[in-house]
Amino acid sequence: MTETATLSLTDVPQVYKRHVFACFQQRPPTHPRGSCGAAGAQPLWERLGKQIEATGQRDIVMTATGCMGFCQAGPIMVVYPEGVWYQPRTPEDVDEIVTTHLVGGTLVERLVIVPRI
Amino acid sequence: MTETATLSLTDVPQVYKRHVFACFQQRPPTHPRGSCGAAGAQPLWERLGKQIEATGQRDIVMTATGCMGFCQAGPIMVVYPEGVWYQPRTPEDVDEIVTTHLVGGTLVERLVIVPRI
Repeated sequence: MTETATLSLTDVPQVYKRHVFACFQQRPPTHPRGSCGAAGAQPLWERLGKQIEATGQRDIVMTATGCMGFCQAGPIMVVYPEGVWYQPRTPEDVDEIVTTHLVGGTLVERLVIVPRI
Repeated sequence: MTETATLSLTDVPQVYKRHVFACFQQRPPTHPRGSCGAAGAQPLWERLGKQIEATGQRDIVMTATGCMGFCQAGPIMVVYPEGVWYQPRTPEDVDEIVTTHLVGGTLVERLVIVPRI
């Protein structure tokens, strides 16, 4: 009898320490669903990208996404592997998320949202 | 003295059981970097979306992304919270990822890639 060793989900080497997904969906300002773009996401995500780069940590990255839902809560971003959703409103909020969560590993509780599906 | 109870990263309720990010980056076929789009991603991701919807599980979702890097390895997708990267080549590969990993919670080892940063 031969046994085949099988990798489990948790055996796979991690590529990133933290992978941030930021919604770049843009709808017209009058669109009834709203959008992260209409809520002012773009300058915040530009700052997010710059601040992540400034950490010098190559295992912390940001990826641009299309709509992740929860459009009324925008601008929204989610940090994995923790699955923490944030709603930053100002450049200072972005900086705090980078410093405290992405680098420091501590939750920025005041900016957390828990979207309902 | 007052102590403030602080939530830790793992205390935050999870929105999704599995969140799939699929790269929709499209560059011209002759572009030296390549792209997931040029590697045939679009029909695979269309199927991925349909098959996820067909599971009826609202806590398994897919989000479209821009470039996640590793363009030569495309089409690529990553499943969080596990942080497992896959390179499906056929519709059957996509179906297997949905059934085995997203729903079943077991790795599809033959389709895993571990990109180097």
